[in-house]
Amino acid sequence: MNGADRLCDVLLVNGVDVCFANPGTSEMHFVAALDRKPQMRCVLGLFEGVATGAADGYGRMADKPAATLLHTGPGLANGLANLHNARRARTPIVNCVGDHASHHLPYDAPLTTDIESLARPMSRFVRRIAGPEDVGPGAEAVYRAAIERRGPATLILPADSAWGEVAPGDLVRTMPEPAPKADEATIRTVVEAIRATPGRVGLLLAERGCRADGLEIAGRIAAAENVRLFGEVLGARTERGRGRVPVERIPYPIDAAIELLRDIDVLVLVGAPEPVAFFGYPGKPSRLVSAQCRVLTLAGIEGDTFDALERLADGLGVSPSQPVRHAAPSLDPSLPTGALTDAAISAITARLLPDQAIVVDEGLTSGRSFYALSEGGPQHDYMMISGGSIGLGIPLAVGAAIACPDRKVVALQADGSAMYTVQGLWTQAREKLDVVTVIFSNRAYAILRLEMMNVGVRHFDRNAERMLRLDEPALDWVALANGMGVEAARATTAEQFATLFAAALARPGPFLIEAVI
Amino acid sequence: MNGADRLCDVLLVNGVDVCFANPGTSEMHFVAALDRKPQMRCVLGLFEGVATGAADGYGRMADKPAATLLHTGPGLANGLANLHNARRARTPIVNCVGDHASHHLPYDAPLTTDIESLARPMSRFVRRIAGPEDVGPGAEAVYRAAIERRGPATLILPADSAWGEVAPGDLVRTMPEPAPKADEATIRTVVEAIRATPGRVGLLLAERGCRADGLEIAGRIAAAENVRLFGEVLGARTERGRGRVPVERIPYPIDAAIELLRDIDVLVLVGAPEPVAFFGYPGKPSRLVSAQCRVLTLAGIEGDTFDALERLADGLGVSPSQPVRHAAPSLDPSLPTGALTDAAISAITARLLPDQAIVVDEGLTSGRSFYALSEGGPQHDYMMISGGSIGLGIPLAVGAAIACPDRKVVALQADGSAMYTVQGLWTQAREKLDVVTVIFSNRAYAILRLEMMNVGVRHFDRNAERMLRLDEPALDWVALANGMGVEAARATTAEQFATLFAAALARPGPFLIEAVI
Repeated sequence: MNGADRLCDVLLVNGVDVCFANPGTSEMHFVAALDRKPQMRCVLGLFEGVATGAADGYGRMADKPAATLLHTGPGLANGLANLHNARRARTPIVNCVGDHASHHLPYDAPLTTDIESLARPMSRFVRRIAGPEDVGPGAEAVYRAAIERRGPATLILPADSAWGEVAPGDLVRTMPEPAPKADEATIRTVVEAIRATPGRVGLLLAERGCRADGLEIAGRIAAAENVRLFGEVLGARTERGRGRVPVERIPYPIDAAIELLRDIDVLVLVGAPEPVAFFGYPGKPSRLVSAQCRVLTLAGIEGDTFDALERLADGLGVSPSQPVRHAAPSLDPSLPTGALTDAAISAITARLLPDQAIVVDEGLTSGRSFYALSEGGPQHDYMMISGGSIGLGIPLAVGAAIACPDRKVVALQADGSAMYTVQGLWTQAREKLDVVTVIFSNRAYAILRLEMMNVGVRHFDRNAERMLRLDEPALDWVALANGMGVEAARATTAEQFATLFAAALARPGPFLIEAVI
Repeated sequence: MNGADRLCDVLLVNGVDVCFANPGTSEMHFVAALDRKPQMRCVLGLFEGVATGAADGYGRMADKPAATLLHTGPGLANGLANLHNARRARTPIVNCVGDHASHHLPYDAPLTTDIESLARPMSRFVRRIAGPEDVGPGAEAVYRAAIERRGPATLILPADSAWGEVAPGDLVRTMPEPAPKADEATIRTVVEAIRATPGRVGLLLAERGCRADGLEIAGRIAAAENVRLFGEVLGARTERGRGRVPVERIPYPIDAAIELLRDIDVLVLVGAPEPVAFFGYPGKPSRLVSAQCRVLTLAGIEGDTFDALERLADGLGVSPSQPVRHAAPSLDPSLPTGALTDAAISAITARLLPDQAIVVDEGLTSGRSFYALSEGGPQHDYMMISGGSIGLGIPLAVGAAIACPDRKVVALQADGSAMYTVQGLWTQAREKLDVVTVIFSNRAYAILRLEMMNVGVRHFDRNAERMLRLDEPALDWVALANGMGVEAARATTAEQFATLFAAALARPGPFLIEAVI
């Protein structure tokens, strides 16, 4: 067997059985090895950002890593923006990057680059394989790092390590270290702070703290101790809907975020970093909490969030029978009619959302009321672009659909952002994924128009208009989707949209709705 | 005025008056400053790889840099693959990347990344602006580096350097150092080597050595001294066609490249690095020249190639009246008929190519006979993907068309590669660029199928097929182009293709032909 076979074996024995791939010449032995492993599902993306974004969506929903297969430095580069999102979402990914054969690197052939320099900013761990016999230990180390450090871990595979012979060896499942638990002193400190600051404490929840079971514990604490529950501005995955404990999401606009946290004197971090402003603005702070607020870390981003919540509840004497405030029980059953607006789309998607749907929200300025409206609707998972790098929505939906083939994925997608990784629609078609994509077709980088006004611009001249508007020509999303094999239709009224959305949900496979707003 | 105004002023005084942009929030002051400069042409790309690839095409054809405008680390990351191509093509680019305000960086906001680490592998120079008053000197240094070091130079512009006040100052045009000239000893060494090795010397030409005037001198040397002329495997820009001196391009397949250079005992580098194998293969060498071949550098990649050629001719006593072997005088005037094949497309495009066209060749495995056939056809510029990172063709055509609005651009484009930066078609439509794109629609990563067979694979199973074929579903290129506002049509016979190609050339604006092969 060769090194590439060994890599496949290590991946498979650890349950990594999906590979989002965009291979090149230096990975041909890896491709040949994958071809000998029918138990590995290889999913082709026609651009590397599709592969990495899909690996993010898969990891978030499957709670285990997928592998990627990328081609040298430029191929990695094309996947970096969505690896960045995955890193911020703390999604484990075994990110495999082929490189030239080691003996070839000193010759600086055209595709030679410093892969480590490219990989490090978006990886929690980087390892270059040192030879065929290092493939096994290297792959185990990368798998382990992806789990333990919660994020993309990059394995650089020189072609000669892939093609070189390896002695067959026993395959043993790698056992990552369990997530570190909070120490007793930390639990006590948080208990005392909650007791000492009645009504002015917030928990900022992430990781397991945003899953139904973690939320349940947080909800009991909130009810018993009058604590508020917050979610990150761009949370990786939150289990929401009827019967679940709701969180207040920190808003993206800095003034609204500061306002939300104004009355919080103790902010307890539960698997999340301290919230900061998305961007720095002249004369505005970077931190969102008030000057007098104490920030306490109950569980760090690599910590055991669920254990910490359980022990905090114990420390507070909050019993498992403590009642919990659940999400608002019901939605307005009527559907909006008339003009198609952001609000109408939000209301219709929230109203018609199927039970246990997976919602991918890259709507940005559009569909903002969906979040509030869907709180009392059917149960669903809700995912955002955690690193703020646009162009994740379509690939994220790919990965989520592959991780959860029995659930419907609904992607709420801004048009400008959709173009970055539009190639992902083809993968949806090829893999026949149950994804309904709603394109908010406003033909502008609307968020940037708002930001321009934030910096004091009231009048837009030609250069600014040319950089912020996507019209001239307008994108025809039905044609784009059809061009990649995805059925699609256009809605210009609320009634049309509701009919199309209901029909798209009722059929298998991908469908795209261009919602002209 | 603020720092962003200063940046625009420094760019404009140095003749950098085209900006390929994909802005985000941290660049809003830069966008506002550009909006105050109507003499700057701002060209929006709907993906950063379009912006950087267009800057490459512009720089190659305009012989001066364009600016880019990218958004933080992930935006830069999306543009890196084509910056890599530009670096290998030695194209000057002033690559501007916005970053968070400096005071905001320590807070590790979601979009924070190590921009320097990302930028260095694809840049010849990287400079982070240290404050508003550093914008002027920093921009001058980056402009200077782009010219002197021949490649992308990256300017990192923190938002507070853009929005901070700057004292108005005199604007002085930056004068880059002239390219270093070869010393006399080098010229003498090459003269002696040519004299001592009759019939077994080759010149490997790049830079000015591949322009008509440089080729003319090289052609005189070749005729007088029985020297062979070679071009790089993926040359940045070569002036070709009737009346021009032809070069033998080094082939991509390693065995053919070694064969071509087998009888060369002295290879003289004229603005090019030593040619090496594109990839390393088991048991094959990395160097392409024979073991006994001496490799001499007449002009380094930053050197004055034209001066070196002139002085070499003088040293050899080759007079300006020395006759030159020109390219083959004529093409077969008949057009192929019947089935649409690679060869038919090559013959038709070579035959119908308008005078002074700019040919962008990202055909990869397709259209390979175009290069030989077009040698005796109308004069044209010929550009390839110099770094080997696919997904350059469509953006390269954008930049070339903007640099040369009175010339027709013909893009020979592999389908798989076209998908990487397909968004560039929209920019072609918006800017109404005279680009005719020919998509070789073979529905496969055909080059990878060849490489799989090179590594010994004869039978492809499901996983390999799923990673190397682009069918299921087939891409509909007419729909994709129409979706982005580009008119398009499909050809399935040679006659249809010839009719469409002729019609597309005769009309203004972009057109795409899906050539089903």
